[in-house]
Amino acid sequence: MRVYFTFDPRPDLKESLVNDFPEVDFIFHKTIDDKELAKAEVLVTYGEDLDEEKINIAKKVKWIFVASSGIEKMPHQAIAERGIVVSNVRGIHKKPMAESILAHLLSIKRALPFIYKNQQEKTWNQKTKLYELNGSTALILGPGAIGSEVGRMLQAFDVYTIGVNRSGESAPYMNETHSMDKLKELLPKADILISILPSTVETRYLLNYEHFTLLKDHCIFMNFGRGDLVKTEDLIRALEEKQIFHAVLDVFETEPLPGDSKLWEMENVTISPHISSRSSRYLERSFEIFKRSLRKWMNGERNLENKMDILKGY
Amino acid sequence: MRVYFTFDPRPDLKESLVNDFPEVDFIFHKTIDDKELAKAEVLVTYGEDLDEEKINIAKKVKWIFVASSGIEKMPHQAIAERGIVVSNVRGIHKKPMAESILAHLLSIKRALPFIYKNQQEKTWNQKTKLYELNGSTALILGPGAIGSEVGRMLQAFDVYTIGVNRSGESAPYMNETHSMDKLKELLPKADILISILPSTVETRYLLNYEHFTLLKDHCIFMNFGRGDLVKTEDLIRALEEKQIFHAVLDVFETEPLPGDSKLWEMENVTISPHISSRSSRYLERSFEIFKRSLRKWMNGERNLENKMDILKGY
Repeated sequence: MRVYFTFDPRPDLKESLVNDFPEVDFIFHKTIDDKELAKAEVLVTYGEDLDEEKINIAKKVKWIFVASSGIEKMPHQAIAERGIVVSNVRGIHKKPMAESILAHLLSIKRALPFIYKNQQEKTWNQKTKLYELNGSTALILGPGAIGSEVGRMLQAFDVYTIGVNRSGESAPYMNETHSMDKLKELLPKADILISILPSTVETRYLLNYEHFTLLKDHCIFMNFGRGDLVKTEDLIRALEEKQIFHAVLDVFETEPLPGDSKLWEMENVTISPHISSRSSRYLERSFEIFKRSLRKWMNGERNLENKMDILKGY
Repeated sequence: MRVYFTFDPRPDLKESLVNDFPEVDFIFHKTIDDKELAKAEVLVTYGEDLDEEKINIAKKVKWIFVASSGIEKMPHQAIAERGIVVSNVRGIHKKPMAESILAHLLSIKRALPFIYKNQQEKTWNQKTKLYELNGSTALILGPGAIGSEVGRMLQAFDVYTIGVNRSGESAPYMNETHSMDKLKELLPKADILISILPSTVETRYLLNYEHFTLLKDHCIFMNFGRGDLVKTEDLIRALEEKQIFHAVLDVFETEPLPGDSKLWEMENVTISPHISSRSSRYLERSFEIFKRSLRKWMNGERNLENKMDILKGY
């Protein structure tokens, strides 16, 4: 069996893979190569190098392992028609992402930007307000693997968690869960609004200016899902009008965020350059998931960890 | 009965107190007044305006309520000889302090200083390492009310917690607890070393340069107790030699930290100007504790919430 990596992993990780699966032929390339593509049964990719044509070339491919969580750039229809199994490393982002979200929330509440600024100026300044996270209510759009981990951590800080998903079915570590059509009724309750929604037809521009007017003045909005959740101009308007207290943005409509974007200079905005899911432990964890899945695959199992519905986009 | 406040609280808080206890005479002064002192049975103070002479004047005082947690500046011996009950608002610092400690830890792990700096420069920069808190081991010096709350939060982040106290008796939310004489054996285990120790004869200069050499290179040291835990010169030497990764300091040998202190400029130091226990909810909470205690006091109970052993200093 041939497993084709369209990227070149760290030597120690490659070595451990080759040692653990002596019966498999592993091909590692820095870029995608049509000849190799035509021969591979399993494809390992970051999910940004495939299109319909590549899928046609990859005639033998039965499983694509995506070493990231986003699959927006993949040719969904072509993959679905061929019945190719797609799985990703969804769970891998859970811990680092949730820790980043808590870091930003606590930093704002406990005045860390103020502390850092005064240190730069060598100023002993105690004149600021420090707030507490405990006792808040958080609205979590997309209480999936990451959202539930965020909910678990928030609950440890005595935060009341309300999940919002398609079905309204209860989700782990949510005190309540509601369906998306209840969104407008729920927004006024939120001290914190966190989105970890993927980009789908349903979530694109889900929020607009009006939604922000329904939030409390002191609400903190965090977008850690995808940048097209809200039009940047709507968000800027809401922030300029102080409809909310602060926005922490890890994702943007255009990335990198253009140098002339107003967002850079706004005092009530934190610009995180889409790094919140990163971790020094990322690749090790990807490989652990891949190895478990490859073992299953070779045993003829097809119900892999993080198996995705490519047409639904998650 | 006369209750004398040596500070002037917010009008709404005073009003609610007077309404709840119509049988009590409340005196509120901005400074300490000897005539009032001589008449009061209960004294409410921030703990920094009393000396032996004042205690001698306060002949009728049987209970001192300290609306802060530090009692270093109080005349311990004189108070003990008179058998005056002393209680403070110890528990009140628990939540804000623990949230500050977690804020700083997560901020360092998740690269928030890097993110803020790049935003100032309007630079989209992803070139940094992000680490995770989960999986770490934290050594907590002083697992009391605050330390245990820190332990509870750390455990929610899958951090292994080791408490170190006088007796070695187990403390809440500590995976292990040891006595102080085991300190040198424990230091090499710590990814994080947190002190919340009060200033006592036993804790003064408890840590010296040698202790820092026993810590891991990547260890984060957090002093949120008192500044005389370690000589500043020892700490600076350890930091210059990169014996540890970072120090987050909320307390200092001299406060405010002098403008010419080397600490201000060190890249591996965070200077928090002794504000980590502050909270917008502080006074409300103090008053809640005081009201509960006053009710007990009027019922003849003397075993008050947060009753202190003034000679031991905690």
